[in-house]
Amino acid sequence: MDGKATSAEIKEELKAKVEARITKGKKRPHLAAILVGEHGASLTYVNAKVKACAQVGFESSLVRLSEDISEADLLAEVEKLNENPSIDGFIVQLPLPKHVDEQKVIQAIDPSKDVDGFHPENVGRMALGLPAFLPATPAGILELLKRHDIETEGKHCLVLGRSHIVGSPMSILMARNGYPGNATVTIAHSRTKDLPSLSRQADIIIAAVGRPHFLTADMVKEGAVIVDVGIHRIADESKKSGFRLIGDVDYEELESKASAMSPVPGGVGPMTIASLLMNTLQAAEQRD
Amino acid sequence: MDGKATSAEIKEELKAKVEARITKGKKRPHLAAILVGEHGASLTYVNAKVKACAQVGFESSLVRLSEDISEADLLAEVEKLNENPSIDGFIVQLPLPKHVDEQKVIQAIDPSKDVDGFHPENVGRMALGLPAFLPATPAGILELLKRHDIETEGKHCLVLGRSHIVGSPMSILMARNGYPGNATVTIAHSRTKDLPSLSRQADIIIAAVGRPHFLTADMVKEGAVIVDVGIHRIADESKKSGFRLIGDVDYEELESKASAMSPVPGGVGPMTIASLLMNTLQAAEQRD
Repeated sequence: MDGKATSAEIKEELKAKVEARITKGKKRPHLAAILVGEHGASLTYVNAKVKACAQVGFESSLVRLSEDISEADLLAEVEKLNENPSIDGFIVQLPLPKHVDEQKVIQAIDPSKDVDGFHPENVGRMALGLPAFLPATPAGILELLKRHDIETEGKHCLVLGRSHIVGSPMSILMARNGYPGNATVTIAHSRTKDLPSLSRQADIIIAAVGRPHFLTADMVKEGAVIVDVGIHRIADESKKSGFRLIGDVDYEELESKASAMSPVPGGVGPMTIASLLMNTLQAAEQRD
Repeated sequence: MDGKATSAEIKEELKAKVEARITKGKKRPHLAAILVGEHGASLTYVNAKVKACAQVGFESSLVRLSEDISEADLLAEVEKLNENPSIDGFIVQLPLPKHVDEQKVIQAIDPSKDVDGFHPENVGRMALGLPAFLPATPAGILELLKRHDIETEGKHCLVLGRSHIVGSPMSILMARNGYPGNATVTIAHSRTKDLPSLSRQADIIIAAVGRPHFLTADMVKEGAVIVDVGIHRIADESKKSGFRLIGDVDYEELESKASAMSPVPGGVGPMTIASLLMNTLQAAEQRD
């Protein structure tokens, strides 16, 4: 399952929708991002989001703030974006510096502009099956499964990891009534016993454990569908950069065993960005 | 697992806490309930809640409204309770008449008074592991497991049913990091295939399918812990009332096989009411 190609396909569709909006005299969707500090990976992620906005014809704004900004000042920046009518949706790139209460900042975001889907009201609406901004990574995985016609109804789906950003919402979304969904879902985590016997029963495995090459061929049954959410840098002298990216799944070992699999890089990552763009268009439509 | 006795124990503790509040000059917790129409079971449930309030020294108010009340008028009643400072928490007894949008009414409740835990903000906070009013039935089941020292960490817990009121929150709560919790959780439902082979692997089964005697002995492994959330009236001429209550679990068949089991009646039902009271005390403390 090529996330890069699928994401490009979605971006083409979004671009056409933006053009149709402009023709009708509507505004371009406008995504803003707050980035605090100089954290390398965060800067990379935010830049990728800004670049993606340009590709589909969205406006974007990047608010860069100093690492030592006070919590109160950061909350004031959030409030400015809440009140700015030209901005349809915005994100606060995580993680935040330790002296800032991350939850407090997330909860300060107007839920109608919370295109990351992290505000409790959006999380609750998702859990209740109400219209909501779905968190970008789980939404991207659903889209990837859908666009590859992966059957999910009645399948046993194993979600590895119970984070608030991926594992937990993923388990809710795969179990709900609809497509993709209607799966029998098992959520496993660090306290799970005898994982291999569980994982060998799964038709679909979503690996979000945060450990390089955690899922190996002996843990998977023939023909399983595998989604890899992990992303890790490992040293590789053969590369110019000195490193390469690998996932939670041992891709090479599983390539011949899985019936479908998402690679790292080029799998879930680009789909996450595509979802963020889809959420931003949805936010713009709701404000029309 | 005797829910009636456990609930009585919790009520004694609540009563002592209320008396301690009064001694300190604080107010009695005050629970209000809105009941629309004359639906028999709803009336029974609400009356049981009002009676439970009296037992623990809470104030209670019952707002009875006509079956044909308009949605706007019902929303106005909700607003009155939101604004009434003497009321710490309230519930709107479900189901509501068909002409009323249930979600609209639930979302009109001030989340800080939503002691049923049905508002999206409370559902989201629960999913994110933030302080929240937990929905009464799942919270009651957690309390029942806790007070019977049921080990949950690393156990495989099967939740049968994916309703927003029981199955879905139950699956989230059993998987979270804490006690009770840290279980490997599988959520199964009407689309699940080969349920017996799944259920025979489970250490803990929470049955909330809404089908009388659905769970039978052949579906359960020796020594499993079973929680029965179902409640059904079936005709029984030997009873004065002409009926008796049974659950989703075939209790007699499973009595010798399970290591612990909650009966119907006298299991989850009384625990649900105990949880509602605990939530109401929590609401009162937050308003102190």
